[in-house]
Amino acid sequence: MRDEIRQQPAALERTLRLEHRAFESLRRRLASNPPRTIVLAARGTSDNAAQFGRYLLEITTGIPVSLAAPSISTLYGGRLRVRDLLVVAISQSGESTDTNVVIERARQGGALTVGITNEPRSSLAGLAEHTFLVHAGREKSVAATKTYTAQLLLLYLLAYALGAGIRLDDLRRLPEWAAAALKLEQEIAERAGRFRFMEQTVVVGRGLNYSNAFEFALKLMETCYVVAERFSSADFLHGPIAMVERAFPVFLFAPPGVTWASIKEMRQKLVQLKAETLLFTDASNREAASMDRSRVIKVPARLSTKGPLPVEIYTPIPYIIPGQLLAASLAEEKGLDPDRPRTLTKVTRTL
Amino acid sequence: MRDEIRQQPAALERTLRLEHRAFESLRRRLASNPPRTIVLAARGTSDNAAQFGRYLLEITTGIPVSLAAPSISTLYGGRLRVRDLLVVAISQSGESTDTNVVIERARQGGALTVGITNEPRSSLAGLAEHTFLVHAGREKSVAATKTYTAQLLLLYLLAYALGAGIRLDDLRRLPEWAAAALKLEQEIAERAGRFRFMEQTVVVGRGLNYSNAFEFALKLMETCYVVAERFSSADFLHGPIAMVERAFPVFLFAPPGVTWASIKEMRQKLVQLKAETLLFTDASNREAASMDRSRVIKVPARLSTKGPLPVEIYTPIPYIIPGQLLAASLAEEKGLDPDRPRTLTKVTRTL
Repeated sequence: MRDEIRQQPAALERTLRLEHRAFESLRRRLASNPPRTIVLAARGTSDNAAQFGRYLLEITTGIPVSLAAPSISTLYGGRLRVRDLLVVAISQSGESTDTNVVIERARQGGALTVGITNEPRSSLAGLAEHTFLVHAGREKSVAATKTYTAQLLLLYLLAYALGAGIRLDDLRRLPEWAAAALKLEQEIAERAGRFRFMEQTVVVGRGLNYSNAFEFALKLMETCYVVAERFSSADFLHGPIAMVERAFPVFLFAPPGVTWASIKEMRQKLVQLKAETLLFTDASNREAASMDRSRVIKVPARLSTKGPLPVEIYTPIPYIIPGQLLAASLAEEKGLDPDRPRTLTKVTRTL
Repeated sequence: MRDEIRQQPAALERTLRLEHRAFESLRRRLASNPPRTIVLAARGTSDNAAQFGRYLLEITTGIPVSLAAPSISTLYGGRLRVRDLLVVAISQSGESTDTNVVIERARQGGALTVGITNEPRSSLAGLAEHTFLVHAGREKSVAATKTYTAQLLLLYLLAYALGAGIRLDDLRRLPEWAAAALKLEQEIAERAGRFRFMEQTVVVGRGLNYSNAFEFALKLMETCYVVAERFSSADFLHGPIAMVERAFPVFLFAPPGVTWASIKEMRQKLVQLKAETLLFTDASNREAASMDRSRVIKVPARLSTKGPLPVEIYTPIPYIIPGQLLAASLAEEKGLDPDRPRTLTKVTRTL
């Protein structure tokens, strides 16, 4: 897991270099015929990437996005009216039976279909009309890391193909920003011991970093066996915050930009409740970056960007990396092997 | 909370009687102009109702449904392309700022807008073109119960208005089925003590009962301060199941029909892991109903229905009631007041 976390700058660079041209042809096709709705289908870590795609695509294109419930196709035999839809399946192995059923039905029904996978010879690559590949090398750890960030990169490219204002020059900086996040490895290894006896937690994220709350919580569940809930700050206030008592640990993704006010307010509320908070942020969120250092993990780079897009649009990839590192270090502190979580296998087939 | 749980048969009967005609006019309008996509916007318990609506509407109408991410409108200023969309906001108070912003923008953009609320004079009722009312009487407990089931009923009526094969005669049986579930009150009060020291749990549901997993988990978080995760059986297998060890408590919604095979398989896997399982089922799922009685809570009625719709289509309302009762009893066992959870207020305003 740790090796694969470290490979991310190279995997991002390679994926961008080898795939960006393929998106140009999709971009031309979509320009004349934009989809009326986008459906994203995935499971597990890939579903967390889809959650990111949902925010990214709705914010930057205005096209409504739905996260597919595969059981509607696989169990209920539901036939979605898919004409004029763009249906995207995301699967590391390309062998998730349920998401493949969604893509197969969608293509039969006349939708434009896209597959995002690591495996050029997978079933998904054969089923989807357009396939885009994660060039991250084989992922051996059961806990996915480098495929998640490469999937995020391909979703930026999909937004680009849909005419959103994503600039390829900005995407080319992602490997460097991921490398900046990796500089935290030693610091995080030293700080992980504090959570040795943590058994439950909540991870809070909002907007473009909401998916990171899911993904960091999933890493904690898979590799550290911590019962990790995940909420947007708004949903957390609508009930679950009642769980929080003295010393309850809450992790918060705290990028600059429009979500900061609500994350900051949430943090203040948690501090009043005597909960223990830890913020993931970067040098460009000055207010968060200047808080009590023991309550902040700060990516040592300025990640905010200028222009019409949200300033934090490129934070999700560098922000998940400290989360991955913390999960890997905490698993070691707890005497667990993060590469071989109990009960799990790398390819999970569900219907 | 307990009083309001008991009021559900009457609230369902009243809501159906007073609202079904209003859906006839919506039905006529939709017949000539069906929406291309449906967007459901809600927070908290109402968002769990929306999750049910998502499955119900996609399964029965084939129209893609998206659960709105309100922050895309409220924080990012995103402008969804809403023409030909049906946008539905669900809010007990009708004063959730964020879902109201979604409805307001949607109506300005040309979408057909529907509000589902308890309050005829709320902001939501003024903003939506069509408003349907929950006639459950004032809900005083912070933990919503009767408004959730009445919202589910109104979503069945919305499916009816969209031309799905929902029969009003079947809906008229819902109060009786809710009353059957209430017969479990004494049994559940006696069994709640077993969970006195439960601090964390997972609730599993699938398909039409997936939303009940969210709702039961939310009740456990709000009223018992139990850290309660919720997953579909498929998502649970993709990682989080690694958390499960000896004696880990897992609740499963186990209706008859197409989801039973995967729930049964999940239960077997959990039994192998020596986890403690408890199934919510009814007399019509013969296999589940005949399992070890200490591991089953069985609604004493046959809830499966015949016809082209899924056999378990009317189980969600009677199935959540034992969950509500268990949360109320467990809060008492833990010495907590389920009507006044710490930190929460009845109306939560978020952006």
